[in-house]
Amino acid sequence: MKKIVTFGEVMMRLSPPGYAKFSQATSLDIDYGGGEANVAIALAYMGMKACHVTRLPDNIIGKSATQYLRQHWIDTDHILYGDTRMGLYFLEKGAVHRSSEIVYEREDSAFSKIEAEMIQWEEILEGADCFHWTGITPAISRGAAKACLKAIQVSNSMGIMVSGDIHSRKSLWKYGLSKQDIIPDLVSGSNVVIASTYDMYDIFGIGKSESNFETSAKTLQEKFPLIQKVVDKDREVLSASHNRIKGKMWNGSKLLTTPFYDVTHVIDRVGTGDAYAAGLIYGLVNHKKDEVALKFAAASCALKHTVEGDANMVSNEEVTRLVEGNGLGDIKR
Amino acid sequence: MKKIVTFGEVMMRLSPPGYAKFSQATSLDIDYGGGEANVAIALAYMGMKACHVTRLPDNIIGKSATQYLRQHWIDTDHILYGDTRMGLYFLEKGAVHRSSEIVYEREDSAFSKIEAEMIQWEEILEGADCFHWTGITPAISRGAAKACLKAIQVSNSMGIMVSGDIHSRKSLWKYGLSKQDIIPDLVSGSNVVIASTYDMYDIFGIGKSESNFETSAKTLQEKFPLIQKVVDKDREVLSASHNRIKGKMWNGSKLLTTPFYDVTHVIDRVGTGDAYAAGLIYGLVNHKKDEVALKFAAASCALKHTVEGDANMVSNEEVTRLVEGNGLGDIKR
Amino acid sequence: MKKIVTFGEVMMRLSPPGYAKFSQATSLDIDYGGGEANVAIALAYMGMKACHVTRLPDNIIGKSATQYLRQHWIDTDHILYGDTRMGLYFLEKGAVHRSSEIVYEREDSAFSKIEAEMIQWEEILEGADCFHWTGITPAISRGAAKACLKAIQVSNSMGIMVSGDIHSRKSLWKYGLSKQDIIPDLVSGSNVVIASTYDMYDIFGIGKSESNFETSAKTLQEKFPLIQKVVDKDREVLSASHNRIKGKMWNGSKLLTTPFYDVTHVIDRVGTGDAYAAGLIYGLVNHKKDEVALKFAAASCALKHTVEGDANMVSNEEVTRLVEGNGLGDIKR
Amino acid sequence: MKKIVTFGEVMMRLSPPGYAKFSQATSLDIDYGGGEANVAIALAYMGMKACHVTRLPDNIIGKSATQYLRQHWIDTDHILYGDTRMGLYFLEKGAVHRSSEIVYEREDSAFSKIEAEMIQWEEILEGADCFHWTGITPAISRGAAKACLKAIQVSNSMGIMVSGDIHSRKSLWKYGLSKQDIIPDLVSGSNVVIASTYDMYDIFGIGKSESNFETSAKTLQEKFPLIQKVVDKDREVLSASHNRIKGKMWNGSKLLTTPFYDVTHVIDRVGTGDAYAAGLIYGLVNHKKDEVALKFAAASCALKHTVEGDANMVSNEEVTRLVEGNGLGDIKR
Amino acid sequence: MKKIVTFGEVMMRLSPPGYAKFSQATSLDIDYGGGEANVAIALAYMGMKACHVTRLPDNIIGKSATQYLRQHWIDTDHILYGDTRMGLYFLEKGAVHRSSEIVYEREDSAFSKIEAEMIQWEEILEGADCFHWTGITPAISRGAAKACLKAIQVSNSMGIMVSGDIHSRKSLWKYGLSKQDIIPDLVSGSNVVIASTYDMYDIFGIGKSESNFETSAKTLQEKFPLIQKVVDKDREVLSASHNRIKGKMWNGSKLLTTPFYDVTHVIDRVGTGDAYAAGLIYGLVNHKKDEVALKFAAASCALKHTVEGDANMVSNEEVTRLVEGNGLGDIKR
Amino acid sequence: MKKIVTFGEVMMRLSPPGYAKFSQATSLDIDYGGGEANVAIALAYMGMKACHVTRLPDNIIGKSATQYLRQHWIDTDHILYGDTRMGLYFLEKGAVHRSSEIVYEREDSAFSKIEAEMIQWEEILEGADCFHWTGITPAISRGAAKACLKAIQVSNSMGIMVSGDIHSRKSLWKYGLSKQDIIPDLVSGSNVVIASTYDMYDIFGIGKSESNFETSAKTLQEKFPLIQKVVDKDREVLSASHNRIKGKMWNGSKLLTTPFYDVTHVIDRVGTGDAYAAGLIYGLVNHKKDEVALKFAAASCALKHTVEGDANMVSNEEVTRLVEGNGLGDIKR
Repeated sequence: MKKIVTFGEVMMRLSPPGYAKFSQATSLDIDYGGGEANVAIALAYMGMKACHVTRLPDNIIGKSATQYLRQHWIDTDHILYGDTRMGLYFLEKGAVHRSSEIVYEREDSAFSKIEAEMIQWEEILEGADCFHWTGITPAISRGAAKACLKAIQVSNSMGIMVSGDIHSRKSLWKYGLSKQDIIPDLVSGSNVVIASTYDMYDIFGIGKSESNFETSAKTLQEKFPLIQKVVDKDREVLSASHNRIKGKMWNGSKLLTTPFYDVTHVIDRVGTGDAYAAGLIYGLVNHKKDEVALKFAAASCALKHTVEGDANMVSNEEVTRLVEGNGLGDIKR
Repeated sequence: MKKIVTFGEVMMRLSPPGYAKFSQATSLDIDYGGGEANVAIALAYMGMKACHVTRLPDNIIGKSATQYLRQHWIDTDHILYGDTRMGLYFLEKGAVHRSSEIVYEREDSAFSKIEAEMIQWEEILEGADCFHWTGITPAISRGAAKACLKAIQVSNSMGIMVSGDIHSRKSLWKYGLSKQDIIPDLVSGSNVVIASTYDMYDIFGIGKSESNFETSAKTLQEKFPLIQKVVDKDREVLSASHNRIKGKMWNGSKLLTTPFYDVTHVIDRVGTGDAYAAGLIYGLVNHKKDEVALKFAAASCALKHTVEGDANMVSNEEVTRLVEGNGLGDIKR
Repeated sequence: MKKIVTFGEVMMRLSPPGYAKFSQATSLDIDYGGGEANVAIALAYMGMKACHVTRLPDNIIGKSATQYLRQHWIDTDHILYGDTRMGLYFLEKGAVHRSSEIVYEREDSAFSKIEAEMIQWEEILEGADCFHWTGITPAISRGAAKACLKAIQVSNSMGIMVSGDIHSRKSLWKYGLSKQDIIPDLVSGSNVVIASTYDMYDIFGIGKSESNFETSAKTLQEKFPLIQKVVDKDREVLSASHNRIKGKMWNGSKLLTTPFYDVTHVIDRVGTGDAYAAGLIYGLVNHKKDEVALKFAAASCALKHTVEGDANMVSNEEVTRLVEGNGLGDIKR
Repeated sequence: MKKIVTFGEVMMRLSPPGYAKFSQATSLDIDYGGGEANVAIALAYMGMKACHVTRLPDNIIGKSATQYLRQHWIDTDHILYGDTRMGLYFLEKGAVHRSSEIVYEREDSAFSKIEAEMIQWEEILEGADCFHWTGITPAISRGAAKACLKAIQVSNSMGIMVSGDIHSRKSLWKYGLSKQDIIPDLVSGSNVVIASTYDMYDIFGIGKSESNFETSAKTLQEKFPLIQKVVDKDREVLSASHNRIKGKMWNGSKLLTTPFYDVTHVIDRVGTGDAYAAGLIYGLVNHKKDEVALKFAAASCALKHTVEGDANMVSNEEVTRLVEGNGLGDIKR
Repeated sequence: MKKIVTFGEVMMRLSPPGYAKFSQATSLDIDYGGGEANVAIALAYMGMKACHVTRLPDNIIGKSATQYLRQHWIDTDHILYGDTRMGLYFLEKGAVHRSSEIVYEREDSAFSKIEAEMIQWEEILEGADCFHWTGITPAISRGAAKACLKAIQVSNSMGIMVSGDIHSRKSLWKYGLSKQDIIPDLVSGSNVVIASTYDMYDIFGIGKSESNFETSAKTLQEKFPLIQKVVDKDREVLSASHNRIKGKMWNGSKLLTTPFYDVTHVIDRVGTGDAYAAGLIYGLVNHKKDEVALKFAAASCALKHTVEGDANMVSNEEVTRLVEGNGLGDIKR
Repeated sequence: MKKIVTFGEVMMRLSPPGYAKFSQATSLDIDYGGGEANVAIALAYMGMKACHVTRLPDNIIGKSATQYLRQHWIDTDHILYGDTRMGLYFLEKGAVHRSSEIVYEREDSAFSKIEAEMIQWEEILEGADCFHWTGITPAISRGAAKACLKAIQVSNSMGIMVSGDIHSRKSLWKYGLSKQDIIPDLVSGSNVVIASTYDMYDIFGIGKSESNFETSAKTLQEKFPLIQKVVDKDREVLSASHNRIKGKMWNGSKLLTTPFYDVTHVIDRVGTGDAYAAGLIYGLVNHKKDEVALKFAAASCALKHTVEGDANMVSNEEVTRLVEGNGLGDIKR
């Protein structure tokens, strides 16, 4: 059984049931999520061992977050506790022409107070096949950024594959440093990088916002020789209820793509990018073929659109069946 | 901040959760609505002051209706209380080939006992930019019809724009008078009239049921010189779950239309016509351009199909974004 | 008022609300269903008298199953009680590329212990216009198979039309006999047979898995001279959320078909085959025209996709309106 | 199996979940009830055949009421349909010092339009052991009063025991006649009468409001020679959450009483008087001993306080166990 | 109609349904509350005009808080918006020996950033009969403390009665000042003070923790001559499910007390102290008799224990009925 | 951190929400429980490491059971999977005079097919401080009985304390052996035995059903020299809603007892005996004083009555606070 280690903030997600707006809601559904934990949960459901490292408030809310991760198969033995603030986000689900809306309350969370010294990466990464990070974590605090860099360095020294999804929201980064300051260091230790043309332009000044993916990816790889694959996806947003997803990868020698997966009835779009990363990692670690890994990425992403919550919770068999195009939509008995 | 005043019955709406049929339901979701109050709520969410005038039973049910209106930003200071009967309607939501079904229990409601003398229109309309009525109100009782006519007359005398949505269900009108008896008087004081070709034929004998809209609209305008715009919409019902909406307006000099808005996943169709009226009024009062107003009407209508309940509850920004075609369906963070 | 009698197991169906997966659920919605009872309920809603015969555990769970059938208009006077085990099935609803999944816990149920001698078919079938069976019942136990055969024989002797839906899951049949051993005896007493080309090949060795329906149907009819109609449907599964349904019938002289019904937003696919059988029986018994009956079958099937639970719960008027193509998707007031 | 026939209005009951007030509720739980139907359901759960006669609106709401009665074991074959109005009542549940509150919307219901000629009592009462009426029915309309009187007369002529619970709310009686006009005729054909000292004073002018029950009961019996038993209960209301119940009966020769049943945690008080009547009838019809019948009345009443909804839904065994004082409160496995 | 003005933070309250613990919850019920807003809502339900002043985040969460206040009759015209953080608290409801547990996330809320200059007290207090504050507000931030003091001073100058509930949790007060620094200034402008013996000892050094209430109250009054009444209550906590409440007041000339109200089935204890203050203010402002006001305080407090949420939502009639001891626990029809 | 190991079946528990009866329910709440797992969860919440050993069906239902245990802190690494049947039980919650009712469907479960050889006890028990068993496990199947005996023997050989709750329902034991055949072997390896006087009489023929506890306990200890403590509790069932609990222990030298804990508002009685065992084990393992352990047992048991589900989910601090009598029922902030 292969093993993934992830690192990042876990937030409580609070959303009105169904398609209710906040102004109509009298209760909120609880989930917990965060880009990296979402990847861990998705991989755990696909059959990998998955350990998530984070820091949570030392109270019944923080404990409940851990219990949620445990319920969804995560090894929570290395979670740290301290301070009192839980990162939260409020999600109002949209449909058709009405966009979903997210309001964050994550500043000063227990996670943002994390320091690199608190974590024993050598011990945690023992036996791991992959360490995964995202561009959200270094945006939260200097401590989080340092801890992430440390994890990458230790992974490198232990010969563990590092994958990074470099997308990062500009509205984070409030502690004094910028994407451009930090992310290059993280990428330089990464073997698999998920990055859009825009991200490569914005963070590294490669090409332009609308450049050709293959060209930019090659440039990125030249710049950071540890990189083996640069991966992205195309998302066509026909409406909040109808998206189309297509995978693409520059694997150092050629550009691979998948056909479009047509998600005609979106149930929950949040975390679909994380499901993409999870499918990619699963394929790379378990099947070791780029074409297969890319199909797993796109199929995992497509399936996540039909699962409520932040994380994909489908089995390896369900993804494989979609990759192979068998029995889609029939009832499994 | 512009101000709208509306007048009409507010009913308690009781509907099984999700797509359950009445024969399956063990609980009912509560909303409150009525064509005119729906317009007021939609405009309040878009940022106008909105005052709704109605009469409710003097008990905890009537109070709860008022509280619902207050929650959704309505000025309820001019609501009257008396008698004991709340108008109700039961709604069973359909899907695809299965139609939604509505059962009314609204006879002898507190509103039906309203008398023109009970309402101080001069005071209520002070500062208003628009008074809006629909063809439902005069159908309920002689008192309601008179009160509505009075409101129009006072609005005219105060120089307030009057808009009327003349559609009226034949199955109402049980008190001895007919559409043809009453609605012409109301239209003669109106500046903006929402009317289908069929309505113009049915109520005023203009053209035929299938006449050309522009021709009928011109005739109507000639007949009632206060009218500045005649407005309608085309609705293509592909199924209960898929509708297409297009706005059209005769503005006295030319026929304006919008493209179709394709609502591929209908969540709640009830009140979409009222959302159309609200968008129209918002555009006319705030933007004062016919093309813009018509787009606001159609976009507001399209968005309402994705909001549960009778009334549209989206912001001016959400409608504007759809009118301008930006970021549709993406997640707003 | 025409009367249907059906015979078969009734299971408690337990499913997470909405699109939740089992791993997310903290409550389960209760329905009760079974192929034959589903047909009975659908016909009761369409206006026929409907008597279902089954055996349930003699406890509060078995009683609740009976109460569910009574609520949905079934005559439950001939239900037997004994033993303690209720057949159950767990249903996780899928969407788009994610398949629904069913887990059965039905072995050793009270129904599986039924014996032919327990049932007074002459009394029960008095006044019936049709007896309906499916290939599930004989798969459950020797006693169930014998009781089913007895019902067919009594129906034959009383001149009551017998319809059989021969589809049967291979994973049942654990008591020592096979489809091929039992189903031919049941079919030989049946007048209307619902069977796919594959079923005819698999059970009777007619043609091959991919044969032409008309050819196979003719052969089947030649083999079993009581058969008057062989009926099937085409289902195109575009995804778990989008199916297309088309009826077809060999009526002894020609092949009839319906156009496709396009179910663009599937709400609950379970039991749609039973709704097809119910529509067929309704049409044959009440309208006595093959074309009409086939349209009723397909329309009833299409509508069931929009009704939660195992059984179709729409009225004769709703099916007729769809057959006639009137007012689809409009709101009925 | 003994048989009860009851006659009276069935209302839809709508109540906020738990202890929410109407001003807080966004959904309402549905039950259906009415004094006489409550008695029928309670007796059906105790094992008697139970037929309820009423008139319901001819729409999906009226049908749902019938389905509720069927679910709870009632023979609904003699229910009439017509008109469009369902009697409703809204219930807000209180606790401790906060009273429950009920708002009725029952005027002009389908039931109020019933006429004596619509009902074939001879056929309906065939095989019945008891006909039960309450003082609510004659208060609703002249037609309802006449139909009730007719049922009593037919019962008398067929030798069927008649029981009547004469309590009637003054706020009903809006059609021109009063309790004092009508109830004596109904009582004169009754064999078992449930009446408080106040009711006997108020309706028949017997004694005073605070008279001795035994004395009043004797006088009532002298006045109406068909009466065999006069029955009442004492209710001590310590709070909305804590009631104590004690049965009493004048059986023509002596006064019987039960000890107090202490209901320390009231879950739903509505319909507890009807459960009392049901227990009484069950005991009289099945055990034919006054002491036993009175204990069944009080025990059934006590148990109803712990059952949600209008009607008692406990088995004969559960009542018997309480009457015998065995295993109270232990878990039954 | 008398008018109250209150000032303080409004928090979103999130609690698992029923008695679930956080570790079991998958959804949370939403209410909004805060000591001062709770007083305003309670008084609004009793029939007073009630204006609450606060500062909320300028997003859909802050708007929803305002909508909640509007729904419950509050005048929200003077609410300020800014920043992004909503004060939250999580509540896990206990029972019997299990205590309820509250976790706050209120630091850096929009309210904590309020400054005295933002509020036009003269305009807001126009026409008010009472201004009410609590010891929570000055504990939140220097700006909140100053704004509160300003409101008291303006009230004094306008001749408006000021009431203050001086209780304050020590765990707040994180901005550098203490209770002892600030509360005396607020009390010196107050006419009615709710204070326990412990509070008087802790804040003013009057007596000791266990002193006699009358003695301490007299001393307090001597120290702050504007004070007319010092009020407190005794709460006996038999368990989380059973409390007893008794009012007491030193009115400058004698000690008044009420009997104990025995709340045998607590539904929601949060905010019962605020309901006490509301009853007191209602009685003082409307009945102007100390004995009556004290009874209103205790009765309002007792009733709140049976209402879900932070604020009492019972009518003046319900409180009066309890004060007068009529019909407690009976059903109101 | 001390460690407990438990062994036994885990069932899915399905119960109607609130106080609904099965005949009223349309959904069921899911929990998972079983006597031994309940002990493990309770101890995990109190802060011990807890490993539960069981066998579950190899499908999504069995996985969900594991996920529930993981969520509630259990080490599930030694759970076995196989076969397809999940043990289930249906629970209808009673109140006051109405008993709760349980219906089991647990025959032929995956657990009943367990064999002693499947489990590596030496590895599992490594580092454990206590192994706990109950009389349910040996009643299920010969394999379960043997596996349990094996665990006890291994524990004895490893010097691990063994505690056994010997109560066993007679209605189990369907595989050919009886309590009297098996339980003595299990008890002979146990150090702490929870047994009532009746159990000692029934299983070992000690004394009589109504014997003195101390006398029977001494005799039991003489018979099984490994026993150090014999423990029981008194439960007074005033009603389904009101129980009183008192602990008692014969510790080899004297009889210890606790005062009664008065549970005046029972929320969920199921599993309270397991909470008693958990409190006892916690006290013995952590505090090593018999008096303290007995108080922990009774307090843990009392608290469980207020927690929904099968297992106690309160912290060590909550139990300690009750044992010490501090702040009961106050709100913890």
